[in-house]
Amino acid sequence: MSSTTYQIPKVQKAAVVPSVGGTLEIRDNHPVKQPSELLPGECLVKLDCTGVCHTDLHAAKNDWPVPAKTPLVGGHEGVGIVVAIGEHTQDSPVKLGDRVGIKWLAYSCLDCEPCRKGLEQVCYHGQYSGFTVDGTFSQYVVSWTSHVTPIPEGLASTEAASILCAGVTVYRAIKYSNTKIGDWIVLPGAGGGLGHLAVQYAAAMGLRVLAIDTGSEKRDLVMKLGAEKWIDFKETKNLVEDIKAATDGFGPHAAVVTAANSEAFEEAIDYLRPGGTLMVVGLPGHGKLAADIFYTVTKSINILGSYVGNRQDAREALDIAARGKAHCVYAVKPLSALQETYEGLAKGTVVGRVVLNMQE
Amino acid sequence: MSSTTYQIPKVQKAAVVPSVGGTLEIRDNHPVKQPSELLPGECLVKLDCTGVCHTDLHAAKNDWPVPAKTPLVGGHEGVGIVVAIGEHTQDSPVKLGDRVGIKWLAYSCLDCEPCRKGLEQVCYHGQYSGFTVDGTFSQYVVSWTSHVTPIPEGLASTEAASILCAGVTVYRAIKYSNTKIGDWIVLPGAGGGLGHLAVQYAAAMGLRVLAIDTGSEKRDLVMKLGAEKWIDFKETKNLVEDIKAATDGFGPHAAVVTAANSEAFEEAIDYLRPGGTLMVVGLPGHGKLAADIFYTVTKSINILGSYVGNRQDAREALDIAARGKAHCVYAVKPLSALQETYEGLAKGTVVGRVVLNMQE
Amino acid sequence: MSSTTYQIPKVQKAAVVPSVGGTLEIRDNHPVKQPSELLPGECLVKLDCTGVCHTDLHAAKNDWPVPAKTPLVGGHEGVGIVVAIGEHTQDSPVKLGDRVGIKWLAYSCLDCEPCRKGLEQVCYHGQYSGFTVDGTFSQYVVSWTSHVTPIPEGLASTEAASILCAGVTVYRAIKYSNTKIGDWIVLPGAGGGLGHLAVQYAAAMGLRVLAIDTGSEKRDLVMKLGAEKWIDFKETKNLVEDIKAATDGFGPHAAVVTAANSEAFEEAIDYLRPGGTLMVVGLPGHGKLAADIFYTVTKSINILGSYVGNRQDAREALDIAARGKAHCVYAVKPLSALQETYEGLAKGTVVGRVVLNMQE
Amino acid sequence: MSSTTYQIPKVQKAAVVPSVGGTLEIRDNHPVKQPSELLPGECLVKLDCTGVCHTDLHAAKNDWPVPAKTPLVGGHEGVGIVVAIGEHTQDSPVKLGDRVGIKWLAYSCLDCEPCRKGLEQVCYHGQYSGFTVDGTFSQYVVSWTSHVTPIPEGLASTEAASILCAGVTVYRAIKYSNTKIGDWIVLPGAGGGLGHLAVQYAAAMGLRVLAIDTGSEKRDLVMKLGAEKWIDFKETKNLVEDIKAATDGFGPHAAVVTAANSEAFEEAIDYLRPGGTLMVVGLPGHGKLAADIFYTVTKSINILGSYVGNRQDAREALDIAARGKAHCVYAVKPLSALQETYEGLAKGTVVGRVVLNMQE
Repeated sequence: MSSTTYQIPKVQKAAVVPSVGGTLEIRDNHPVKQPSELLPGECLVKLDCTGVCHTDLHAAKNDWPVPAKTPLVGGHEGVGIVVAIGEHTQDSPVKLGDRVGIKWLAYSCLDCEPCRKGLEQVCYHGQYSGFTVDGTFSQYVVSWTSHVTPIPEGLASTEAASILCAGVTVYRAIKYSNTKIGDWIVLPGAGGGLGHLAVQYAAAMGLRVLAIDTGSEKRDLVMKLGAEKWIDFKETKNLVEDIKAATDGFGPHAAVVTAANSEAFEEAIDYLRPGGTLMVVGLPGHGKLAADIFYTVTKSINILGSYVGNRQDAREALDIAARGKAHCVYAVKPLSALQETYEGLAKGTVVGRVVLNMQE
Repeated sequence: MSSTTYQIPKVQKAAVVPSVGGTLEIRDNHPVKQPSELLPGECLVKLDCTGVCHTDLHAAKNDWPVPAKTPLVGGHEGVGIVVAIGEHTQDSPVKLGDRVGIKWLAYSCLDCEPCRKGLEQVCYHGQYSGFTVDGTFSQYVVSWTSHVTPIPEGLASTEAASILCAGVTVYRAIKYSNTKIGDWIVLPGAGGGLGHLAVQYAAAMGLRVLAIDTGSEKRDLVMKLGAEKWIDFKETKNLVEDIKAATDGFGPHAAVVTAANSEAFEEAIDYLRPGGTLMVVGLPGHGKLAADIFYTVTKSINILGSYVGNRQDAREALDIAARGKAHCVYAVKPLSALQETYEGLAKGTVVGRVVLNMQE
Repeated sequence: MSSTTYQIPKVQKAAVVPSVGGTLEIRDNHPVKQPSELLPGECLVKLDCTGVCHTDLHAAKNDWPVPAKTPLVGGHEGVGIVVAIGEHTQDSPVKLGDRVGIKWLAYSCLDCEPCRKGLEQVCYHGQYSGFTVDGTFSQYVVSWTSHVTPIPEGLASTEAASILCAGVTVYRAIKYSNTKIGDWIVLPGAGGGLGHLAVQYAAAMGLRVLAIDTGSEKRDLVMKLGAEKWIDFKETKNLVEDIKAATDGFGPHAAVVTAANSEAFEEAIDYLRPGGTLMVVGLPGHGKLAADIFYTVTKSINILGSYVGNRQDAREALDIAARGKAHCVYAVKPLSALQETYEGLAKGTVVGRVVLNMQE
Repeated sequence: MSSTTYQIPKVQKAAVVPSVGGTLEIRDNHPVKQPSELLPGECLVKLDCTGVCHTDLHAAKNDWPVPAKTPLVGGHEGVGIVVAIGEHTQDSPVKLGDRVGIKWLAYSCLDCEPCRKGLEQVCYHGQYSGFTVDGTFSQYVVSWTSHVTPIPEGLASTEAASILCAGVTVYRAIKYSNTKIGDWIVLPGAGGGLGHLAVQYAAAMGLRVLAIDTGSEKRDLVMKLGAEKWIDFKETKNLVEDIKAATDGFGPHAAVVTAANSEAFEEAIDYLRPGGTLMVVGLPGHGKLAADIFYTVTKSINILGSYVGNRQDAREALDIAARGKAHCVYAVKPLSALQETYEGLAKGTVVGRVVLNMQE
């Protein structure tokens, strides 16, 4: 372990949801867990910045079928510096001073069947940042040395932040979408926070991207980022037929659907090419896939739930971003802007991602 | 081509659905396509027997979103002898006198993208026995030399019949269920026509089978055929919890759901192990999967539509049966029993499969 | 079939190897198989041009363990127009006037086990252009409607020619190399006929390419085509260590070795990353892989023989080229230049590929 | 952690190789690492028994390209009870009193790229029992809580011992051999320590086993264990042709070659079916695969190095054994019989496996 020592304050700025359904409070005196209090395997990370994700809104509202802890410090797209490591920590892959990321999957046991098979994100003992443990809407966060993600040199912390969740999520979904170079992939919501990253990851793999969204601003953005074709869903009279026509007449080989509404899944079954794959990544509190059984079978469609990503997915998504193949569009704001950001996410008015500066 | 010649009658016995929604008619004077009328690539098969499948009922009732031809001779589980091959046929893999099977997929072009990738069952130019072309409820059937399936020596024609559809369907579904030896697979409807074959195929691969159905007769059957555990769905108070408890507490690695009702799919999402796979093989005219989106994602569930099987799947399913690893339970009846068989299928009173003797 | 008819001459220009070990002869009066002589399933293609491949040299010299036919018209990278189709041909995927390619795999039965599984290139009844049947070093070639490859619009015939063998071979090898975006791939001989295409296909998939070859001309070429790093094998003192150093210190995830010498394979086992994949595509008449057993096991290396490609691989490789992602470097010459081209290939002095103009 | 405490002696019986090339010594006073000396993450296991593997002989002779530690306590097939766990150990998956196995892979970091991808056996920081750290030829062994393998209830320790290395090795090799039910697999050395377990695992998956070995005793054994066919390599005049003839004339779909001699690999390329897979698991100190390049390519053969197994493979191999699908043939002997066992292994006279009773 490094001999460097960091001055750790007793209190910090943090955004706290005090109770189920409670109002978000920005506090100046939230306690900081001190290095001596860390358990073996834990580390303390001083955050530079953190992204804000739609999932944080669910956690704050506690409207998922699984409850969040309360009081809750949300947030799971943080980047900062390791400033303390719990005494007696075994084989820490990180050391004091390392720049690391905090992602949704804060901890997995690395021992249960899903973990042994590489599906850490469905670990039987998983912990989730800003959901089952406090997250990154505070200046210091406690996490696990085995799961914080090294940030590649040369990638700005504010760039890395949203890659840790939005980027990893769409990257993994595309990676497991049974596609290869030259295949068509449809990305509904291509101009959104997840979508615009998906366009870039897909294009970097050699996929042909058909972007679906609305408005000329989004169209210009996604075409610049590498989409080959565009459909404005507000202008089409028959989305399914237009998608098929744009993709050789047979439909795309895959679709990554981040939406929460059942209709988006129903349509996907219709427009996908026979043998095609529907990646499901949205996380509405309630909602059914509503895929037609007859066509799911007779078209031999694959419908795959894809849940953020594991440690390897996170490394890969960051590495691709660090090599300039995927850039996040984001605005930097102070922590105090969190509440208005939630409101913007609820209304759908946020362009790209919001990243909070945690050290100002 | 062989020098053997067969006497081909001008007319035959056949079960014909004359028009949409019409009544099934058993006719004695249905014309037989003569050898000289066969196109290159076609062959005439004199049928020994044919199985009756639930799909035939849909075809007869024409209640699927895709219409059947009319007048229609149904049937797609036929076994018989090649008695003629169209003049100028190229490279026929079969010769006069060969015993072959007629399956649901009567023809695929072997040239379109799905065909080139081995997904013949979703060929852009596919023809389906007893649906888009006349099938096996007649004494002679016209099919394609490239797609009739050689029947292994030593396997009785009546045994082979139901393997050609029910067997292939469940065999392929299990083969693509992401399972391997030692994994748990749940088979709802394990005592039925498809289910009892699924039990045997799964057991032969070393899977651990949890059979779900009702009644002691079915229980005894499936346990004898290789199931390791049994749950009577009419006796359980909480099917999901009982399935999990029976499978190490985590749920099965896969489920093959042949049912048509939405509820069966919804339950599967609940009881499957994280990372588990739901094989969808039922073909209701209307119905939605109704899988919960939140859990499909957070459990990283795979939902795979599986549609009968391709030529290779058919060979494999038959080969396994010929080596005694899978036996069909069936009753042999005359063609005249077809209507009552349909009624039994509609009511759910048919035990195992019904095979019609076509040459009596 | 089209009503268009083409004038077919009785004789043509062709390069013929008259007997085993014989001298190549350019003849003006080689007979053309007439439309009326075509069997069902055969077609006659009037060639625009044809690439010359190192394999043609083996066929001409007959130095492989499997003998070529004699007299032999070699060549298997031809592009031309379908000018006749055999009477009674079933379901031809091509029609008169279509522009198509002739590749190494002239015919596969589409029925045997390898064919049913998509491994057409190892068909039990395969025919090979310019090896077991006459190939493209003539103005007209007979081939099979089921296996000629449609050439995408907008791709010049001379561009398409070498994609049909060199392109398909490296494309398939990369496609099956167990790699994905961000992985390192090493390409020994990157500046050669196969290698320079491999660089482009790999880069288009998002792979990181380490090119190995010698000389500044080749270096400049491969770097321009998308390689990220370069090692001149004549300048390195320790190729294995330099390769590892260039690829994060761990070695590349894959290597595509087109060389014929045993040493290249032995080195690959040494420099590959644990779990890495060695694609073997070279076809020397004699030669052993000579991979060290101990390290093949303890590094868990995959060594995969990859043999040209199937129909789908050919479509994909051409499609990628047609969309401008892979360009062949080639020189157009007359058929009379074939002998000197062979000599150049034997000496290793051919830059890129040679394409013969067949209609001048 | 449990409140149970165990009495740990200061010294123990152990078999020690004192120096490179030294003579094996059975000592009574070998020190036991005391619980207070254990590092976080370490545990002390009191051994019931341990298997003896051919690899131990290599370690003792130090004839591999990678050197073993010295002085060395060999052994990596141990079964015993956890009697101490290092203070401050994080999240131990095992607790005091648990019965666990010690396998070849004693430790992997679970963090490097191979580990993150599930290839723990090629971890960049791996430790190997009885090779880089002391192993199981002593009454107490120090290992890691994250890597000791829980032994299923009902499986005798002496049964479990050889499953931990011989069993896991062949199980994983078969699991990754690209085979499925009904495929043919050839097992040279089927009557040996690894081979007889391979026969059972393969049969339990529904594979068709062609066993190769010599002598009627081995023939009777392997046929009883589930082989379908047998070839005595001393009686055949043409092994390659006989293997092909026994497997439908096309050759087997896979071969698991545990032998060390180059010839066995060369033959495998010849007899394997096109598209077939050669699993390489032997670990000779020196030796080349010597696969013919031409046929590796033109038959599209896969040659896969397979190195013991990871934690999941070990669980699966043990689970299958615990359910009675694979039994090891072994003889129990005292630790003092180790030297003579080595001599027997060197001469090839050991039938099945030798398991040493460590507590007598």
